[in-house]
Amino acid sequence: MTSTPPPDFDRETAVHPRPGEPGAYDADLPGAWKVGQGINGGVLLSMTARALSAELGAPRDGRPGHPDPLSVSAYYLSTATAGPAVVRTETIRRGNSVSHGGAELLQQDPETGLPAPRLRVLAAYGALADQPDDVRTSAKPPALAPVEQCIGSDAAPPEFRAESPMLTRADLRLDPSCVGWAVGAPSGRGEMKGWFRLPETRDPDPLLLLMVLDVLPPVSFDLGVIGWAPTLELTAHVRADPAPGWLRVIHTTRNVAGGLMEEDAEIWDSADRLVAQSRQLARLPRQS
Amino acid sequence: MTSTPPPDFDRETAVHPRPGEPGAYDADLPGAWKVGQGINGGVLLSMTARALSAELGAPRDGRPGHPDPLSVSAYYLSTATAGPAVVRTETIRRGNSVSHGGAELLQQDPETGLPAPRLRVLAAYGALADQPDDVRTSAKPPALAPVEQCIGSDAAPPEFRAESPMLTRADLRLDPSCVGWAVGAPSGRGEMKGWFRLPETRDPDPLLLLMVLDVLPPVSFDLGVIGWAPTLELTAHVRADPAPGWLRVIHTTRNVAGGLMEEDAEIWDSADRLVAQSRQLARLPRQS
Repeated sequence: MTSTPPPDFDRETAVHPRPGEPGAYDADLPGAWKVGQGINGGVLLSMTARALSAELGAPRDGRPGHPDPLSVSAYYLSTATAGPAVVRTETIRRGNSVSHGGAELLQQDPETGLPAPRLRVLAAYGALADQPDDVRTSAKPPALAPVEQCIGSDAAPPEFRAESPMLTRADLRLDPSCVGWAVGAPSGRGEMKGWFRLPETRDPDPLLLLMVLDVLPPVSFDLGVIGWAPTLELTAHVRADPAPGWLRVIHTTRNVAGGLMEEDAEIWDSADRLVAQSRQLARLPRQS
Repeated sequence: MTSTPPPDFDRETAVHPRPGEPGAYDADLPGAWKVGQGINGGVLLSMTARALSAELGAPRDGRPGHPDPLSVSAYYLSTATAGPAVVRTETIRRGNSVSHGGAELLQQDPETGLPAPRLRVLAAYGALADQPDDVRTSAKPPALAPVEQCIGSDAAPPEFRAESPMLTRADLRLDPSCVGWAVGAPSGRGEMKGWFRLPETRDPDPLLLLMVLDVLPPVSFDLGVIGWAPTLELTAHVRADPAPGWLRVIHTTRNVAGGLMEEDAEIWDSADRLVAQSRQLARLPRQS
């Protein structure tokens, strides 16, 4: 029997318990998910959540394990770079249906050699499989053109591709209504939507959803504000285990003011279920 | 000269630095803001944010002070009761335009005598007065009937008033379209909206906004699901210093599933500015 190697995403975002340091996990931030100067914030969120899932997912002291992120709030503190990192987790409370944890993602500052916090997280974990199966969702899935009519990253401007290796890691197809910014004609609606899957064979799961919530270009592009929009805070809610197949993702903004914008994201699975939502507060790029 | 006593809300939600314990603040959770078994979650959030404002608001080490909550994420761990509490703050990072902090609100467990965490918070603070004055908000204020046609808490069913002393502390007037639940005829839209002010003379400010984001009855009432809907997580964004006068508040939900619901809130000030937004994940009351 030969063993099958794990899909690329799982290998890239793996975390490993650090011997002798309970709650600490070693990670290697993947250069493949670089975007601009840093590593994609959704990937950092997914890796941090993976460490918390390992920590809270096992039954302990007679309490059941809670492997799935229900709600994760992340505060981004400094730009993460490819290479070694450590996630230090804290178990805050173990409950019967929900457990709470906190985490910090750190790297060594290349100049000072001191620990540099990249991300701080608070989270509530549960077991999605144990939730009641009521669905009274009034939201509707985004209207998207068929996958084959949407725009893949091969069509991205060369300077974007050079800055963002992650464009080759995500099979992202943007709806034609949202790509006007690439030719200087943004819609002005403040909307970004498309289809997402990993290019490798891998079904979506809760940890992948956390990444996908922050994988689209900033919604500010569709307002004609082109540039890096660093996230101050992002809170994700994972509401169900996603069905296999393509995911549909939509980002919108309704409140751009004071140099900041709120950006809301939804992920819908192939079974038409709203499986994840997020809201983030991001700094609006300075217009040149 | 006689000194004017502070408005009731400021007195009730005051926090006092604990001598000899840097970062710790003593508080007395106000029974006047009791709702059901616990203290209103928005009041707990406001008090915790007040401690962080004291901690991060003063200039230090050549960095400017950041007194205003820009984003606060709160995880509710156990039911808080009226009486003594302590807020322990942690300064995570001081920046030029944003500083980050964490906090924990604790009480002594009446049975075990051990510290019982009620609330954990991560937050980004800034100075709202220093933000650029661009406003490109596409959201519109909620349509509300005039204040005098809205329904005050004197009209609440007697059992609600008995359970919720806070109904007499908040001057809240619900839009007639959202109070059908009180007579067994909820609209089913999943919306709750109305006017808010404090009965005492006090203009709104960022810390009051944090409370107001969680002061309306749960939006599940409007879906015909009557009962306590405990918050797992609430993240608030304060986007501007509110103008004096009445606030307009609207709560909506679009995703009720798996025993949980997302609840979005907006606060608009008298100058028609969207001054605060929040999203929470709450447990849906079990239907009898």
